[in-house]
Amino acid sequence: MRWFSVMTLLACLGCSANGQDISLPQPVKTGGMPLLDALSKRASCREFSVRKPDLQTLSNLLWAACGINREDGRRTVPSALNMQETSVYVMLETGVYRYDETKNLLILVHAGDHRRLTGSQEYTHAVPVTLFFVADLDMLKISNPAEEHKMAYANASAGFIGQNVYLFAAANGMAAVFRASIDREELAKCFRLSPSQRVLYAQSVGYPEAR
Amino acid sequence: MRWFSVMTLLACLGCSANGQDISLPQPVKTGGMPLLDALSKRASCREFSVRKPDLQTLSNLLWAACGINREDGRRTVPSALNMQETSVYVMLETGVYRYDETKNLLILVHAGDHRRLTGSQEYTHAVPVTLFFVADLDMLKISNPAEEHKMAYANASAGFIGQNVYLFAAANGMAAVFRASIDREELAKCFRLSPSQRVLYAQSVGYPEAR
Repeated sequence: MRWFSVMTLLACLGCSANGQDISLPQPVKTGGMPLLDALSKRASCREFSVRKPDLQTLSNLLWAACGINREDGRRTVPSALNMQETSVYVMLETGVYRYDETKNLLILVHAGDHRRLTGSQEYTHAVPVTLFFVADLDMLKISNPAEEHKMAYANASAGFIGQNVYLFAAANGMAAVFRASIDREELAKCFRLSPSQRVLYAQSVGYPEAR
Repeated sequence: MRWFSVMTLLACLGCSANGQDISLPQPVKTGGMPLLDALSKRASCREFSVRKPDLQTLSNLLWAACGINREDGRRTVPSALNMQETSVYVMLETGVYRYDETKNLLILVHAGDHRRLTGSQEYTHAVPVTLFFVADLDMLKISNPAEEHKMAYANASAGFIGQNVYLFAAANGMAAVFRASIDREELAKCFRLSPSQRVLYAQSVGYPEAR
């Protein structure tokens, strides 16, 4: 009986068998609001309710952000020479995860509620989902290897992904805000990044506060 | 009779009375392909036909890219503290123009066909439309004024706009490719930029070559 309850609980949370990673349901890849309407509604919102997106919505959101849209593994966002140096880290109440778009999986990076690290603006600390864009500069094999050039590519990548997130939010009655005011050093420690990885930006996503 | 012909010609080209700037028709802001379908079709394409988008399509494209979507002048893309430091320059066969989203106008910057400057990759030279993302770093009044920080904002802005262009292209059977291989110094001269302005990236847009 106890075993059954534990397994049911794990299934409800969408956890994999080891109770750590979160296996996402298959994302929905067709339909939704017409593109021009989503562009008309695109806006930054800083007033979030505590309502959490369900796992299906989270899966759809992450696929829209940078999921695979072709059989060759290419994604909804461009990537210079398909080097895919920029990943999405997902901070939830239960921990920090790296989105693995090939396995449709949230890989646990650091368990626990670290949402006080979501930004210097306190309103972010209770937002259910914050995405962080993290680039691995060692994955960028470009002709000019100066960090300045690599960061130009990486920051554009964060913009590509962030715009998809904004449009998904607009199309689904959700709230989102792309943010630069983050403590990149603290986040790098929390995310257990290697020296070649850089935290670029954050984007909080949830539902707008009812007025 | 001659007067009538000239006026008709100007009207067909969408030119304003001075024969230089191009007045765009009102953009369409609703409808289009469902967002998730556009994300499914998002791809970079480097094989363009010589077919030119008509002025209505160009207007719709530029509005989607970074047009105004709210009465307070905010746009389809986010901007740190609404500083709107990044503009779109449009290179056509007839010249280089700056997109003025408030007036829905292409303001002539440099007449003539400068498309050999669209990139080091020759396939770009015949593409009918190439957009260039240009940031004015003096417009970014951020707490850390180091150029490195300003460029991080500007490059993310280029990503936001570029992703909108990709999705618009995907939704309208068009081809697009975001490119870094450009001669920024030559372009800055051609665009008559001030010292605080930086050319970030290019994005060629047209129709895919029929196979």
